[in-house]
Amino acid sequence: MRLSEEVEKMVSAIADDLASGAAELALQAINVFRTTLTDCGTDSLAEARERLTDTARAIVRAHPAMAPMYNLGTEVLNAADAANSIEEVNSTCGEALTRFETKLCSSASRIADLVYDLIPPGEQVFAYSFSSTVVSSLLSARSQKKFFRAVCTEARPSNEGRRLATMLASGGLEVMHSFDMSLGLILPTCRVAFMGVDCVGRPGLVNKVGSWMLGLACRELNIPLYALAGTEKFVPDDVFFAFEDHERPGQETWNNPPQGVKVLNHQFELVPFTFIAGLVTDDGILRGEAQIEEYVRNVKVHPRLEELAFASP
Amino acid sequence: MRLSEEVEKMVSAIADDLASGAAELALQAINVFRTTLTDCGTDSLAEARERLTDTARAIVRAHPAMAPMYNLGTEVLNAADAANSIEEVNSTCGEALTRFETKLCSSASRIADLVYDLIPPGEQVFAYSFSSTVVSSLLSARSQKKFFRAVCTEARPSNEGRRLATMLASGGLEVMHSFDMSLGLILPTCRVAFMGVDCVGRPGLVNKVGSWMLGLACRELNIPLYALAGTEKFVPDDVFFAFEDHERPGQETWNNPPQGVKVLNHQFELVPFTFIAGLVTDDGILRGEAQIEEYVRNVKVHPRLEELAFASP
Repeated sequence: MRLSEEVEKMVSAIADDLASGAAELALQAINVFRTTLTDCGTDSLAEARERLTDTARAIVRAHPAMAPMYNLGTEVLNAADAANSIEEVNSTCGEALTRFETKLCSSASRIADLVYDLIPPGEQVFAYSFSSTVVSSLLSARSQKKFFRAVCTEARPSNEGRRLATMLASGGLEVMHSFDMSLGLILPTCRVAFMGVDCVGRPGLVNKVGSWMLGLACRELNIPLYALAGTEKFVPDDVFFAFEDHERPGQETWNNPPQGVKVLNHQFELVPFTFIAGLVTDDGILRGEAQIEEYVRNVKVHPRLEELAFASP
Repeated sequence: MRLSEEVEKMVSAIADDLASGAAELALQAINVFRTTLTDCGTDSLAEARERLTDTARAIVRAHPAMAPMYNLGTEVLNAADAANSIEEVNSTCGEALTRFETKLCSSASRIADLVYDLIPPGEQVFAYSFSSTVVSSLLSARSQKKFFRAVCTEARPSNEGRRLATMLASGGLEVMHSFDMSLGLILPTCRVAFMGVDCVGRPGLVNKVGSWMLGLACRELNIPLYALAGTEKFVPDDVFFAFEDHERPGQETWNNPPQGVKVLNHQFELVPFTFIAGLVTDDGILRGEAQIEEYVRNVKVHPRLEELAFASP
């Protein structure tokens, strides 16, 4: 099935966006499905299901490490499977999209409430990379008159840490910013650290490369590191390891290396649960592998998306 | 005493050089003293000593964290103190400079011999930031037919890791390069790690910011990290903490931050001896605080340079 030019364009924009977090891109993916549903106007029931499957697969391929892409696709494809006519596809899938959108927003709001209590007033708070959940949580705390200073680093090579700094500052927070490797000097001035998450599974958390070093440094310095993730970030084992293949072009790190220098540019890495103080979710703060495993056990990915985890990127 | 324009210019060039290592800049500082000795031509004995003191202080101020600057200045000022005439200043100081130059070169060569045995053939070797001692050691091993691959990272914000990659590649080594925070992914592919040092004292090693994170990650992953430093890098307690004040302009990290964002740009940090497997010196591989302390105890800094450690930068 050929996706419409508009849908292809929207998917490309999501794939090329390295500065936004997973929750933010999931909201954009919802719009891609809405456009796909419009494209289904003259489809047969079978054609509509095929079109939605292709959109779901294109979205997963755009960011295979971002769990909401799998879970959003699964919701839409399950809704399409349950429909008995093209009209029902429209209504059941439309409802599934609204449900997912509402869940994303209520997750963010519930997480922000929990984060509020984790910020010691008058202290410095570290935040890594870019995560819309982290931004909304910190700005929500600030708007509720909690005073604190945010500290963040560049998050090379895409520098989405600068976007984080800019958004936090524009929301009225005082921000201290430095380069990534200065963590050893600036973390000791912070009382708590936060990071977003792209994917949570039994083996641990997947997030932007550098999260492992952040977690290691936080553990060494006894600074509690909280990962913020709505339960829409949870995935079963089957699709967990898709992130490993996700390498970006080396030129993004160094655009003109001399001969003999091979430039690597990995995007994601695994952070063990032992590095974090807790996983702040819309269902409360989960601590330890056993508690997280209980949640992950109930997550199912639609069979037509499962195989993507093992496809070459 | 007004230093000559030529000497002022040479000192500025050293101060502005963020890409070179301490041993390399010490060689340039030797030339500054040679030019100063020429400038002493018509000085009285007292004037010559004053001129040499001012040059020594200017060189220390250019890079107060780099130990060879103190130790080179001390050698020259001691030689000037011992001289009884302007002619003797010329000869004793000239000899001191040649001695220091010879020591720098023989240190590098002796260290390279020791490093040769630390490189496991056919494996990957990590190197951080830029150090002429690391470069000469790795290239010397390569020229003696030891086969290995070098792995390094950018070393933000000055990116001297790219200079390292370029020099190693031009010397025939295969080089893998990535951004700094990818250490968690790339260090596990390496069997040993090397770094240069700006200063060694009883509290630990001082080196480019990021060395603490490298040391922590190496300890966590059981990868031996060796610091390479000739004994001309050793300083007594009195001058050790000069490095803490050494902050560079924030624009070097982010040249146009938005309002509300303060950019920090520290240059050096302390690495505890517990993070390193050994300190490779011209006197052999030193291990543990006690052994290093024994060496540091004998180092004396000339009194006219000591006070600089406490001056504002």
